[in-house]
Amino acid sequence: MNEEAILDAIRPFTVGIGDDAALWQPSRSHRSAISSDMLVEDVDFTRNAMSLEDVGWRSMAANVSDLAAMGARPVLATVALGLPKETSLDEIRELYGGLARCAARSKLAIVGGDLSRAVALTIAITVVGEVRPSNVKTRAGGRPGDVLAVTGPLGAARAGLELTRQSAAIGDDLVVEALRAFRHPQPRDREGRFLAASANVAAMMDCSDGLSTDLSRLAAGCGCGAEVESVPVAPSARAFAEARGEDAARFALAGGEDFELIVAIRPRAFRHVAMRYVRRFNRELLRVGVLRSARGVIYEGTPLGRAGWDHFEG
Amino acid sequence: MNEEAILDAIRPFTVGIGDDAALWQPSRSHRSAISSDMLVEDVDFTRNAMSLEDVGWRSMAANVSDLAAMGARPVLATVALGLPKETSLDEIRELYGGLARCAARSKLAIVGGDLSRAVALTIAITVVGEVRPSNVKTRAGGRPGDVLAVTGPLGAARAGLELTRQSAAIGDDLVVEALRAFRHPQPRDREGRFLAASANVAAMMDCSDGLSTDLSRLAAGCGCGAEVESVPVAPSARAFAEARGEDAARFALAGGEDFELIVAIRPRAFRHVAMRYVRRFNRELLRVGVLRSARGVIYEGTPLGRAGWDHFEG
Repeated sequence: MNEEAILDAIRPFTVGIGDDAALWQPSRSHRSAISSDMLVEDVDFTRNAMSLEDVGWRSMAANVSDLAAMGARPVLATVALGLPKETSLDEIRELYGGLARCAARSKLAIVGGDLSRAVALTIAITVVGEVRPSNVKTRAGGRPGDVLAVTGPLGAARAGLELTRQSAAIGDDLVVEALRAFRHPQPRDREGRFLAASANVAAMMDCSDGLSTDLSRLAAGCGCGAEVESVPVAPSARAFAEARGEDAARFALAGGEDFELIVAIRPRAFRHVAMRYVRRFNRELLRVGVLRSARGVIYEGTPLGRAGWDHFEG
Repeated sequence: MNEEAILDAIRPFTVGIGDDAALWQPSRSHRSAISSDMLVEDVDFTRNAMSLEDVGWRSMAANVSDLAAMGARPVLATVALGLPKETSLDEIRELYGGLARCAARSKLAIVGGDLSRAVALTIAITVVGEVRPSNVKTRAGGRPGDVLAVTGPLGAARAGLELTRQSAAIGDDLVVEALRAFRHPQPRDREGRFLAASANVAAMMDCSDGLSTDLSRLAAGCGCGAEVESVPVAPSARAFAEARGEDAARFALAGGEDFELIVAIRPRAFRHVAMRYVRRFNRELLRVGVLRSARGVIYEGTPLGRAGWDHFEG
């Protein structure tokens, strides 16, 4: 049993599971977007690897990132917590502090939620946002020839996760970069809204399960395939991979939790969009490849397997 | 540590935890409402007491009920599931079947969600609804003298829960009534919208934690107290309590999960609202007491303690 099999089983009961967030229309001139995530201790996070403040931040960041991928501005969140018996009020405050600080960064309000006892600490967040109808981006708008780009270099969060388990012979500043990317990721909500406002941005999603997995989802959503031409690797990921004798690009391709956005942009507009992006954010919009009509994702001439995280496999 | 202590700890980080659902304004003429619930196996439900189809139905019903209590029409839901390793696809289909049937009853769409591994089966639902600004009801609108009423008799769900643990010498049809109330509760969303449309309905909430607990919350929300004059007891609850030698009214006062609505209605309008209610729903709107200026809830001349369910006590 894997995640796809479960999604197939529940699809008949649902409407449109498949994008980062779902959309509805509260009035003619508005679209709202909603996204939910559940995180379970020792499945989705461990306290060995990060503080509860970090757990809260990352949980909220993951939801904000899902809305960013639709071009939506996050407005509010609900938080349901499952708390083991031994949880202290100080621990709850620490966790909530992380949730609230990440929410404040995106100017969204935590408006309610629920509390239950649980065996393992469980955090279920729902974020709602607003988006102009003309700015909505899904995973389906791309077509062959569109340029694929990401909002930042990849792999640092994976390096950070692995550094919480084993040290590596890399510089201290790179360790800091990697741990920060893993524990305190910056969702790309401003970048998402900026890109969503361009008619030449055809499709968008976030890269939370690793570029190889998420790119194959984006390409499938667009009814086509993709070729990866180059992988922008974060300095800490490159150093970590090389210290272990691994290929840095393949390390970054398989690394999840980066929360960068993947966008498909009309080829004639790519240079212009990338130039405006760098002026606005002082960071580069990084070309990673192109959409193509043949199905599947290829890299260096061979098909790229999905290497990302699946809760239900193995 | 109890639930109130935890809520106090997280209140500084949040906006307006306290009503059944939170509200926001996607455009000038609209209000949206949102509510989240988390249910954990062996805490909030057990498979001994009900099927997974029932678990799904009740989980969705609890969320619909929260929106009903604000006068909102449910529009969509997200469902995040934490699944233990041994969960089969058939079990997931059964659970989702219950979720989807209850959602269909209220014409709401399940639009997305999340899947994670978990130690115990965990269901986190968020429901979003819409409500006309003029129809919004909170827990705060009542004032001394308002008549308190409930949308149906109470206690059947508690009798049903207890009947899953021990049999009682009551009629078979009463057993069926009680088990149905517990396993397959009917959220009062149509009743909630009907009552919300009346300017004479001053405050509303659902009665999911037992009338004694929820009435003290409603009265506190209105900045006043309440007197319980009479408790409408469901036939199965009366028979069950009497078979055990207990006072039926006090049994029903302490029984949670009934999902009836509690409303505060301007005294001069109560008869009129109740008459229109019975014509519309062919059931009675049942008077239970009045709001009064002195704090606390009294019944038969003595203060009524909170007897409802608290996850975090004991």
